[in-house]
Amino acid sequence: MIVRRLAVIGVGLIGGSLARALRVAGEVGEVIGCGRGRENLEKAVALGVIDSYTHDIGEAVKDADVVFLAVPLGAMAATFGSMVGKLKPGTIITDGGSAKASVIEDCRAAFGELPSGFVPGHPIAGTENSGVEASFPELYHDRRVILTPTDSTSNESLATIEAMWRICGANVTTMSVEHHDEVLAATSHLPHMLAFSLVDSLAKMKENDEIFRYAAGGFRDFTRIASSNPVMWRDICLANRKALGDMMDRYIAEMAELAELIRDGDSEQLLEIFGRAKAARDRYIDKS
Amino acid sequence: MIVRRLAVIGVGLIGGSLARALRVAGEVGEVIGCGRGRENLEKAVALGVIDSYTHDIGEAVKDADVVFLAVPLGAMAATFGSMVGKLKPGTIITDGGSAKASVIEDCRAAFGELPSGFVPGHPIAGTENSGVEASFPELYHDRRVILTPTDSTSNESLATIEAMWRICGANVTTMSVEHHDEVLAATSHLPHMLAFSLVDSLAKMKENDEIFRYAAGGFRDFTRIASSNPVMWRDICLANRKALGDMMDRYIAEMAELAELIRDGDSEQLLEIFGRAKAARDRYIDKS
Repeated sequence: MIVRRLAVIGVGLIGGSLARALRVAGEVGEVIGCGRGRENLEKAVALGVIDSYTHDIGEAVKDADVVFLAVPLGAMAATFGSMVGKLKPGTIITDGGSAKASVIEDCRAAFGELPSGFVPGHPIAGTENSGVEASFPELYHDRRVILTPTDSTSNESLATIEAMWRICGANVTTMSVEHHDEVLAATSHLPHMLAFSLVDSLAKMKENDEIFRYAAGGFRDFTRIASSNPVMWRDICLANRKALGDMMDRYIAEMAELAELIRDGDSEQLLEIFGRAKAARDRYIDKS
Repeated sequence: MIVRRLAVIGVGLIGGSLARALRVAGEVGEVIGCGRGRENLEKAVALGVIDSYTHDIGEAVKDADVVFLAVPLGAMAATFGSMVGKLKPGTIITDGGSAKASVIEDCRAAFGELPSGFVPGHPIAGTENSGVEASFPELYHDRRVILTPTDSTSNESLATIEAMWRICGANVTTMSVEHHDEVLAATSHLPHMLAFSLVDSLAKMKENDEIFRYAAGGFRDFTRIASSNPVMWRDICLANRKALGDMMDRYIAEMAELAELIRDGDSEQLLEIFGRAKAARDRYIDKS
């Protein structure tokens, strides 16, 4: 059994699905849930996702072999803070935050130094839904999980967390923190910014009712991610502001060039850009 | 019967679906197809979409009551040019171009003045597929068709084209050319530019293989429109360059502001923008 006692801090889609996957595999002994909302936690017990719960983080983690932090990025610092001095020796800590440098900073700030049992991680998975009812054991099947071990992370801790995610059906990769934050800024955080700001800028036009009425299918697909949780995205922006800011500058420069080509009516260059983009998308996305 | 003889110039998804819808409704007598590719036209005859075909535009339109131009925007000027002097009096001309000022200019340039039978139009409908095999009679069901009559358009011509689209199941609206081009720049042309340039800018990063590997579901949805036909989009950019250029400037300014807020870590403003965007999308899109 890979985890004897698992503490899940934040029992929602991400945390609940990890617990369910490990249970289905018979690879977890006991699951302790922790969170603020009693109703959600009661539901988690009723659904068999967790065995028991507490609202006290220190209490939740005290006998845990693995602690999984599945709280919003903005709550990581306080969560680590509540764990200090409460862990037994050898406890492994991992998380599901979608920006990694900030989580590592929060951990260091709380513990004074980075614990050898800390394995920062990011399962790239999710659905539009949230809460423990939305969780299901197959969420991580064939999804990627990126781990960004620190200089302090022990090989044993890393190996355990890799094995844990593989049991859930995930493809596990290891990379540097900086690289993770840059890749995610490009493929996830930037697209969300584009969708949010497109919808917001149309909503600000005075004929916005009419504008949206003429939005066709492509617009719906394109802006679906603008319906994501605003608090979560605020937190991601704050947590990954450096990499995301750089990516946005790069993109704005690209857009300004494109606007120039359009104004100049540069037929050849426009065709080249659109052709290259179509080829790249068809090659990388539809195949995978 | 609304159209005794219909000439469809360009027998693909758009032109073929109009012919099929009118046939199903029993509202068209004869359909003459015109295009360059013999194979596609033979297929159109075999599928019963058209009754006969010719590669000669003048021949196709000479006895037509209604001519529908469903050719790429870049081919409009030449198509109008081939029709000059070939139409019988009273023929109504309409089109399916997704930018309208440029089509009107092309028509004026060819005929010297705008014919009273010319009713510029834009059915907002389509699928990823093209060619006559992709056409189907329900394509325009519950879709919007925008007509942008000119000062020369006769009431009779406008009424006929309105009725024709209603028979196809479409919701028909009339608006000014300028307004059409602005609304479409905002809801369709700008989102396509964002998707094309996002994919292109990621493809240019040196680790592009890896970048795309980590792209999750949201990225797929967001960039689906980057797989659109590059020639068609080159044409749209050239045709709607004024309205699209202005919209891009507005959007670039919005993005630059957002980048600044991210760099400043302005939690409150970020939350406000994301919340406003989510509310607008949920209100306007999911309801409709």
